[in-house]
Amino acid sequence: FPSRLPKVGTTIFTVMSALAAEHQAINLGQGFPDFPCDRKLIADVNEAMLADHNQYPPMIGVPNLRHGIANKIQQLYGHQYNPDSEITITAGGTQGILTAILACVSPGDEVVIIEPAYDSYRPSIELAGGKVIAVSLEATRDSDGKVASYQIPWEALSKAIHANTRLLIINTPHNPTGMVWQKSDLDRLADLLKNTSTLVLSDEVYKHMVYDGARHHSVASHPELAARSFLISSFGKTYHVTGWKVGYVAAPAPMSAEFRKVHQFNVFTVNTPMQYGLATYLSDASHYLNLPAFYQAKRDFFRAGLEKTTFKLLPTPGTYFQCVDYTALTIPEAKLSEAEFCKWLTTEVGVAAIPISAFYEKPTESGVIRFCFAKQEQTLTSALDRLQKL
Amino acid sequence: FPSRLPKVGTTIFTVMSALAAEHQAINLGQGFPDFPCDRKLIADVNEAMLADHNQYPPMIGVPNLRHGIANKIQQLYGHQYNPDSEITITAGGTQGILTAILACVSPGDEVVIIEPAYDSYRPSIELAGGKVIAVSLEATRDSDGKVASYQIPWEALSKAIHANTRLLIINTPHNPTGMVWQKSDLDRLADLLKNTSTLVLSDEVYKHMVYDGARHHSVASHPELAARSFLISSFGKTYHVTGWKVGYVAAPAPMSAEFRKVHQFNVFTVNTPMQYGLATYLSDASHYLNLPAFYQAKRDFFRAGLEKTTFKLLPTPGTYFQCVDYTALTIPEAKLSEAEFCKWLTTEVGVAAIPISAFYEKPTESGVIRFCFAKQEQTLTSALDRLQKL
Ligand SMILES: CSCCC(=O)C(=O)O
Ligand SMILES: CSCCC(=O)C(=O)O
Repeated sequence: FPSRLPKVGTTIFTVMSALAAEHQAINLGQGFPDFPCDRKLIADVNEAMLADHNQYPPMIGVPNLRHGIANKIQQLYGHQYNPDSEITITAGGTQGILTAILACVSPGDEVVIIEPAYDSYRPSIELAGGKVIAVSLEATRDSDGKVASYQIPWEALSKAIHANTRLLIINTPHNPTGMVWQKSDLDRLADLLKNTSTLVLSDEVYKHMVYDGARHHSVASHPELAARSFLISSFGKTYHVTGWKVGYVAAPAPMSAEFRKVHQFNVFTVNTPMQYGLATYLSDASHYLNLPAFYQAKRDFFRAGLEKTTFKLLPTPGTYFQCVDYTALTIPEAKLSEAEFCKWLTTEVGVAAIPISAFYEKPTESGVIRFCFAKQEQTLTSALDRLQKL
Repeated sequence: FPSRLPKVGTTIFTVMSALAAEHQAINLGQGFPDFPCDRKLIADVNEAMLADHNQYPPMIGVPNLRHGIANKIQQLYGHQYNPDSEITITAGGTQGILTAILACVSPGDEVVIIEPAYDSYRPSIELAGGKVIAVSLEATRDSDGKVASYQIPWEALSKAIHANTRLLIINTPHNPTGMVWQKSDLDRLADLLKNTSTLVLSDEVYKHMVYDGARHHSVASHPELAARSFLISSFGKTYHVTGWKVGYVAAPAPMSAEFRKVHQFNVFTVNTPMQYGLATYLSDASHYLNLPAFYQAKRDFFRAGLEKTTFKLLPTPGTYFQCVDYTALTIPEAKLSEAEFCKWLTTEVGVAAIPISAFYEKPTESGVIRFCFAKQEQTLTSALDRLQKL
């Protein structure tokens, strides 16, 4: 039978994790921590199981968890979502993304994405029958021609978005580049969308990983944008449990109503004891309040080690990813494509990374690869040892 | 924005559970047990969490769980699925169904379903852009005109299925009627499909609930059908943990490959500690081998109680649902529509049930409602007390 996704292979994160496992490489590819989560969180889930919270929860999610999320968003970003009509628990961020797209994109609808883009966006739009319009982040370059920073491509965006563009997908802090949106960016986006009926899907799963004293600017901090946005988040990144697959989607009631129509026939609902455990754990804010300092220390440690190599470091204002330009290396492999370089780095050097080209439809070679630094110091040290030998 | 599912409201199971909670009715509507799951299973999950199985598992699922499933299918039904290329762990049966449909149904493709049908089938097909062709189970009737049993509508099926029908969805044991397919039915279906390229989605989540010494006949027991089928299953029903949302889809490698392309961009993967816990627990076959006797005792107890009412009982060869015809009651409410009768039964009598009309696109009134008997004896006794007063 004809493939619905003929151009799609296995997601790059799975491919690189499998290659890393096969070659016993240090896996700095796929984004997940290699250190344990808080035992308190495990105890909270275990308690929920023992209290017999093991049957279907409400389709939209456990009330305490939805209320906790609404309070947290209100405190951090000022917007009051109604926990009953505007927040839905999802089986992770990715499920929230596909479900939101299936709920609002009809065949032929145009959806604008900004590349490099998380690799689920495009196939999700295609499954809904939508048409992907991709614009690219603008790279500013140093005098040596290497990428210095990424900028939102305002001109391309304003050309791409029409009055009836159905959806724009944004992602801040941005995977893979680490770029973060500023308050002025949200203002500018709201202006751009003023005379459109365009909805926004804002993927903010790295929202607690913003460094150097800066703040995350959520669509929930911007009333005009909040009124037209699906806000996507996930507990996996925040609580070091990427395998638990619990996240949420917050959106105005009419958008949430359509979201839920699809959600109920996708996963129906989300793991009950995990929801109860997270609801309990969420009430202590110290964990996510400490997260920026925790990851900034890892970022700084990893960057300091990389400074001793000839990789050119890109800035990392957010996320737990460090991008580097490898074309500055003085080895023959510096001429390889990003995908080939990552393969070589994994199999021959023993450090797995992700090629940025995987985040583009038409592989765009910028000579940049992504490392995940959500790792124990010892893991980062071992990886740095190997990278410093290049 | 225009709804992708304009005719869809909130799923009947959520509506009736909410109504039951609001009126403190005994909830025999939505299908879930009200008794605890095995503490051993909880301990297995807790152990997995404490062993730090909390990060992304492989996209297709934890190897031990896939291998355990393949062994179990082989032992029970004789078909050897390759655990690496033919079995994928899903976030419950419903997610497996939507994902399989999105993977194989292209816009305009015809999909045949048999009504009464689980309420996710139709919207899932519509989201994929497919065209639903519904045929109805045939009811044989007693001399009093009441439904005696349900039969597979072979004539209607053979008219509905064309050489290029993309997909047929079957469900055995059948929700809501409890009907089970026989070996001869599978043979007949294989014959019917011989000269077609039609795939089969076989929803077998109630496979361990077949009574009176009969056996479940899986598509996995029929090589010709197995070669063109997505086999859907779930651990929620089998292990009394409907809220855990772990299931699987088994299908030939080329079908599984397309399934996984969509799966990876839907949920990406499924809760890690639950998968590890289930993998451990699965190795002891006693639980699911004891399940038919366990539920048959509940069925017989509940039916014996219902025999003291004027509800007309339908046969229950499988599932944990008991259907009854209420039009035999000698009260004015016996004239209500199924939906109205269930509402009345929930709010006024204090027992929630599900109207069979909810399993049809065009509400078909057969005067039949569904009770779930996966309940403690005490719950069933209380419900019977109330029903016996009618
Ligand atoms: C869903 S697997 C990938 C995890 C992740 O977000 C990343 O590595 O970019
Ligand atoms: C997904 S909620 C419904 C559970 C069930 O299978 C049923 O009640 O029919």
